[in-house]
Amino acid sequence: MEKIIDENEVEQVKLLAAINDDHEGAIVELSEPMHPEDFASMLRASIAHWRKQGKRGVWIKVPIELVNLVEAAVKEGFWYHHAEPKYLMLIYWIPEGTHTLPANASHRVGIGAFVMNEKREVLVVQEKNGILRGKGVWKFPTGTVDEGEDICAAAVREVKEETDIDAEFVEVLAFRQSHGEFFDKSDLCFICLLQPLSFDIQKQESEIDAAQWMPLDEYRAQPFVQKSEPLKYFFDLCLAKIDNKYSGFSPVPNTSNIPDEKGYLYVNSRYLSPPVRSGYHLPA
Amino acid sequence: MEKIIDENEVEQVKLLAAINDDHEGAIVELSEPMHPEDFASMLRASIAHWRKQGKRGVWIKVPIELVNLVEAAVKEGFWYHHAEPKYLMLIYWIPEGTHTLPANASHRVGIGAFVMNEKREVLVVQEKNGILRGKGVWKFPTGTVDEGEDICAAAVREVKEETDIDAEFVEVLAFRQSHGEFFDKSDLCFICLLQPLSFDIQKQESEIDAAQWMPLDEYRAQPFVQKSEPLKYFFDLCLAKIDNKYSGFSPVPNTSNIPDEKGYLYVNSRYLSPPVRSGYHLPA
Repeated sequence: MEKIIDENEVEQVKLLAAINDDHEGAIVELSEPMHPEDFASMLRASIAHWRKQGKRGVWIKVPIELVNLVEAAVKEGFWYHHAEPKYLMLIYWIPEGTHTLPANASHRVGIGAFVMNEKREVLVVQEKNGILRGKGVWKFPTGTVDEGEDICAAAVREVKEETDIDAEFVEVLAFRQSHGEFFDKSDLCFICLLQPLSFDIQKQESEIDAAQWMPLDEYRAQPFVQKSEPLKYFFDLCLAKIDNKYSGFSPVPNTSNIPDEKGYLYVNSRYLSPPVRSGYHLPA
Repeated sequence: MEKIIDENEVEQVKLLAAINDDHEGAIVELSEPMHPEDFASMLRASIAHWRKQGKRGVWIKVPIELVNLVEAAVKEGFWYHHAEPKYLMLIYWIPEGTHTLPANASHRVGIGAFVMNEKREVLVVQEKNGILRGKGVWKFPTGTVDEGEDICAAAVREVKEETDIDAEFVEVLAFRQSHGEFFDKSDLCFICLLQPLSFDIQKQESEIDAAQWMPLDEYRAQPFVQKSEPLKYFFDLCLAKIDNKYSGFSPVPNTSNIPDEKGYLYVNSRYLSPPVRSGYHLPA
């Protein structure tokens, strides 16, 4: 932390250590305990300093151990941007007018995995927790795509975790966007086709009550599926794909050298040159 | 708030008013100011009560006006789940072992809009803010999909806001997932094809420096595009689509009666029956 002498004050006021962002903003990461009143004075002095510098947005990351400093920042006009288990991110906007700070993450992302064996049976599970618990419903393995995780990797991981089946990712067949299931956030669910590489099921103890390979007709005949337009719709797309009458999006690793551009592009592989593997080939 | 008499205490302790969720959890929404010490006693009594009831997860929504109560909850073992500008959501897990509470929203979602006129010129803008400011780069209109907003609606809205062009959504041509641009969160960007319904550009004053219809070759020849594998890739998919050599995903409104299932499914429309409009038809 640097010290400055304000023109109008005789006493020295410490400033908060900040780094600059690409948008004329300042980012402060608190790590040392301090008294809330000392923090409030430093914050006031720092805002005056940043204002002179022409700064716009101010971000303060407060680890949960320093929760006693949050109230002081809110009293100085900061508000919440986002929070994770171990920290709270506060923001402040110095100029007049509406802020142009980026929005918080808005979507949860999930996958549903269609995996079929050589007998045209689909891999299904019964969940131990949640609203389907104890209802005898057989469903595709599903799960959450973690932050920082590729959709294609999440599908392979969830199938492995829930059933111990090794599988290779083939395509995103379709996706669904829905709203309001989780506070004010929205959900994106990607329906993924995976090719099994092993066939012996070992169910996950913690989350899965039962797992099996199930005849396609039996899956589709379940009242739970029959009552859900999206489930019927997606299942029929899976069957069309298996019969080579449908084409989804394949993941193409981004070959860019720019770190921000890593990850995958998902495109209709039927038009790719060189072609990406997109068929469903089961061992004879 | 109800009152209970604890077996071991003579004094009456108020409990926090809570509603139940579908996962044996309790949800508390604070709204009345109180002293942090009173809140801490009520919280301790409430947790004891919920524990007897067999409750698992506890959620406490604290509006920013009651920021002075956050520290007390953290001291009782609560941690942060998520935050929005006006509130902080705290959670606590009563049973032994690892919690199974749902993760926070993990992705920001954006769109890039390809809009072409009858002269085969693409709609492009120069941005006033951000890293491209003042660099003379012409790019597709882009923007953030708000929570609760459909991807197809966001694309139409952003084109209208930035250029005043009315347009109809046609298809999601491809999408990209990337990581680490925004703290630990991930990004999903959907490349959307829109059909223009009007052609006179009026640029947005607040965010856009300039907007125009630009010949396709001129767009692609920009060093900014040439240096970006995804941009070149996506642009070539747009051209293939225009020439009817590519097929993306069309939005299909979900006809389900279940509120949680509203929103859109996005599927390859080439295989839909009845067919969904997916061609690009410009006025002669």
